[in-house]
Amino acid sequence: MAKVLVPLAQGCEELEAVTLIDLMVRAGIEVVTASLDDERVITASRGVQLIAQTTLDQVLGQEFDLVVLPGGLPGADYLNEDPRIIELLQRTVQHGGLSAAICAAPKVLVSAGLLDNREATSYPGVIDVEPAPGMQYLDLPVVDAGSVLTSKGPGTAMDFALILIERLCGAEKRLEVEQGLQRS
Amino acid sequence: MAKVLVPLAQGCEELEAVTLIDLMVRAGIEVVTASLDDERVITASRGVQLIAQTTLDQVLGQEFDLVVLPGGLPGADYLNEDPRIIELLQRTVQHGGLSAAICAAPKVLVSAGLLDNREATSYPGVIDVEPAPGMQYLDLPVVDAGSVLTSKGPGTAMDFALILIERLCGAEKRLEVEQGLQRS
Ligand SMILES: [Mg+2]
Ligand SMILES: [Mg+2]
Repeated sequence: MAKVLVPLAQGCEELEAVTLIDLMVRAGIEVVTASLDDERVITASRGVQLIAQTTLDQVLGQEFDLVVLPGGLPGADYLNEDPRIIELLQRTVQHGGLSAAICAAPKVLVSAGLLDNREATSYPGVIDVEPAPGMQYLDLPVVDAGSVLTSKGPGTAMDFALILIERLCGAEKRLEVEQGLQRS
Repeated sequence: MAKVLVPLAQGCEELEAVTLIDLMVRAGIEVVTASLDDERVITASRGVQLIAQTTLDQVLGQEFDLVVLPGGLPGADYLNEDPRIIELLQRTVQHGGLSAAICAAPKVLVSAGLLDNREATSYPGVIDVEPAPGMQYLDLPVVDAGSVLTSKGPGTAMDFALILIERLCGAEKRLEVEQGLQRS
């Protein structure tokens, strides 16, 4: 079973965070949510309060198949300022796993050096205006650049979750989860 | 400013609940989330823990422009068994407001008598198999039947939220919120 970390910063985008978590749980993935500090109650960007399962320090020694960052502000700034997150993203890719981010959070992948010479997307005004060296910004819902995946925003979070499920669990599982959603 | 109640039952569908709340907050709507009992920590259907702002008893005397029920099981069953919810849905419509439900929750609108002789939708297997008298089930993402609106499931929650915003705040506000989502 794949194991995924979703770091939950104060001010993260709750729709993005919950869409990613919900769909990956539907796929049978082990999803771990972790707050950046000891306060596990997260007040998200539109005021929804979520409780993280654990804290980042508790899971730092673990290996994940995917680390995926929700966007939202100031959440993505807190992720970007946290050296543990930067190191975790780098280490996950070095170990053959995936690092991923949506909305404002792809800038954290830029900080980690993971978008150098890669294709990527983000919410407009984020990594298109401050790209990584050699990076190409694509105006697409989701960009799969191999070990690093990015997505645009709340309206693409469901597509992003489904593509991450396909990468981790295969196309059949992705289809099964997608059919259960009753998308129009 | 419109005022909306989102009752949060244990086992509600977190993606539906959070998508509705998030988008309505983006629209400037006053969104009140309320647990059914004194436990305000809600463990949703895929394990995400949310904290409701208040309890249902605390807000029962208030008038809402919209009461909207997230789906999910057993969440929708708890809503359906709660006479306060049934009465609140009925009273909201009587006062000129809207009642709405998604996924498994439209059955609560059936229980409240609000779908008699109306068009409606739900997750397949819910109100299509146990319809209200004279009700017509439509296989559509969202059905706007005037004072009562229904939607199919997680994959239609964003469309549903946008249509509710349009009903409460107008088409311009809906468009503004929709543009901010970066939908594909
Ligand atoms: Mg593994
Ligand atoms: Mg009012």
